[in-house]
Amino acid sequence: MARLVRHDRNSPYQVKTNSGETLWICACGLSNNKPFCDGSHKKTQDENPGDIYVYDGNSRVKVNPLYM
Amino acid sequence: MARLVRHDRNSPYQVKTNSGETLWICACGLSNNKPFCDGSHKKTQDENPGDIYVYDGNSRVKVNPLYM
Repeated sequence: MARLVRHDRNSPYQVKTNSGETLWICACGLSNNKPFCDGSHKKTQDENPGDIYVYDGNSRVKVNPLYM
Repeated sequence: MARLVRHDRNSPYQVKTNSGETLWICACGLSNNKPFCDGSHKKTQDENPGDIYVYDGNSRVKVNPLYM
């Protein structure tokens, strides 16, 4: 069971609970503490618009966006 | 800014808040109501273990998992 999902966001979702808590939920897809943000979106800051990346640990590769 | 991220889970994260609320957070990657679950993980139930998929609307394709 596995799939590749496109993520466009590079900052977390801010979720306010009924009691006033604030939760930061991973949106970049890269957190190692999912569903919560762990700051991994910082790795995406220098992505070039129009390019699609696949991350693998601390490295990444561009992939051909033919079907994106 | 975009990336493809592998998702292995096919059920949402259950997050309990301090006040006792339960939030269901998307983990399959396919929800149209992110960060919340919208039941889209049902689409993944018939994925074959060992195969990697890319979803596009209601269809999907298998991709070559050379680097997975």
